[in-house]
Amino acid sequence: MEIIIADEAGVCFGVKRATEIAFEAAGEAEKPVFTFGELIHNPQVVEKLRGAGVAPVETVNEAAKATVIIRSHGLPPDTYRAVEAKAARLIDATCPIVKAQQHDAEFLAGEGYRVVIIGDRNHPEVQAVAGYAGPDVVIVDSVEEAARMDRHGKVGVVIQTTHRLDECEEIIGALLPKARELRVFNTLCNATSVRQDAARELAGDVDVMLIVGGRNSANTARLAEICAEATDRSFHVETADELDPAWFDGAERVGITGGASTPDWIIEDVVARLVEFEDATVVDRRNG
Amino acid sequence: MEIIIADEAGVCFGVKRATEIAFEAAGEAEKPVFTFGELIHNPQVVEKLRGAGVAPVETVNEAAKATVIIRSHGLPPDTYRAVEAKAARLIDATCPIVKAQQHDAEFLAGEGYRVVIIGDRNHPEVQAVAGYAGPDVVIVDSVEEAARMDRHGKVGVVIQTTHRLDECEEIIGALLPKARELRVFNTLCNATSVRQDAARELAGDVDVMLIVGGRNSANTARLAEICAEATDRSFHVETADELDPAWFDGAERVGITGGASTPDWIIEDVVARLVEFEDATVVDRRNG
Repeated sequence: MEIIIADEAGVCFGVKRATEIAFEAAGEAEKPVFTFGELIHNPQVVEKLRGAGVAPVETVNEAAKATVIIRSHGLPPDTYRAVEAKAARLIDATCPIVKAQQHDAEFLAGEGYRVVIIGDRNHPEVQAVAGYAGPDVVIVDSVEEAARMDRHGKVGVVIQTTHRLDECEEIIGALLPKARELRVFNTLCNATSVRQDAARELAGDVDVMLIVGGRNSANTARLAEICAEATDRSFHVETADELDPAWFDGAERVGITGGASTPDWIIEDVVARLVEFEDATVVDRRNG
Repeated sequence: MEIIIADEAGVCFGVKRATEIAFEAAGEAEKPVFTFGELIHNPQVVEKLRGAGVAPVETVNEAAKATVIIRSHGLPPDTYRAVEAKAARLIDATCPIVKAQQHDAEFLAGEGYRVVIIGDRNHPEVQAVAGYAGPDVVIVDSVEEAARMDRHGKVGVVIQTTHRLDECEEIIGALLPKARELRVFNTLCNATSVRQDAARELAGDVDVMLIVGGRNSANTARLAEICAEATDRSFHVETADELDPAWFDGAERVGITGGASTPDWIIEDVVARLVEFEDATVVDRRNG
């Protein structure tokens, strides 16, 4: 069997950075140390952090007098300021690409644009950036929602960093007749696009495709959706324990990708388990 | 037989204005009076103007010491200035929507955007606005051309005023991954969109669809294309003389639309000829 790990599979720069910041704080910062919300959308990493003494909290009051880490998805400005005021120390692990997106939304709102966020209104990143986008912000996640919008003179757009490019292209098209001026900050994370393209290509080229990552991770869910479009034999797992040997009956080539919040060690675990099932060679296309 | 004239069929505000300006100049301005290029894309109107003593010229030298009318599609700035310097008097009949598009292109180029014009590179309107769009202007007219573009930091877009909205939506989508910032001035003429939508709807609802207008008129050609997508029995004619009674065999409902440069009297001629073929009632949806 041949196991092929897709380009850009797994942890992105922003998640890696947030995880390092959190583990560093666990060792060095004044106790207690909390993350505001779960640091990243990966239960295994959140559990490891808890083991290192860094638990997630959900309210500003719980953050009082503690060291508080702002998670990779960021926070709306009013919550951010409330945490800052109550916490003993605030450590900002917001992904730099998300931070830029928040600045873009704030700029557009300040310039009088009706801000549209393309993304999932239930995702913490979208909820955070919405706080920067002015009182009349509109969140759309489909061509149908975009088509229902009223027309405005100036429409400004930012995008959930891990959205699917092809869907964003269609939504941007549908926004064209909604404005005299349509100003789009393409805040899509480039690593996300590369990861999605590589997953789509690999899924079409193997017998079985595995998508590894948190079930609560939006970008992992999008990868699973993209792979399911390319092959019937695609499976989304959080950990190696979920692998079922029957999935690989007769498979000569197995592809693996992982979401932006999936740490390398979970992907390595999956590979190791596959090799236990059957002799295999591993081709690692990551960052190449 | 029922004859239905589509909403916004025929001459638009900009063409009507240019035609009025030209006939007024024919009566009042100092001779000779020329238009720089054909005033509008309708041979019958151009012929009428010639009869009134206003002929088209193609070169700056021909414009020397004459009264010169700038046509509805506008002129690139260097040609405009050359005509202005040589002519005895310049009368600007550029469509105000085209004028705004030229200002938008100039603004975008001045702000450091790589300007993209969505339109037909052989159309005089596109050639005129290209002169305002900076030295690195890119003209694209399809998703494939947009997809071939290099990525730039800031991409600014203006659109040929009479383009098809659905094609522009797809092209704008394809431009999304080409820039960190995509700033689109939606310079589509609203009357054009309404005319296209009304033609599409009517063509799907009648037995025969007629599209009336100059064969050299890009927007009339687009109407013909849109109607041909909706019905097999659609015909593009310039004048009533081209009508073939055989087209209307067994037809109970006939739809008519006309391009933005098709004067009302040509549409009235077509209706009058149809009524000669067969008794008919006329439903006029224009401006309604």
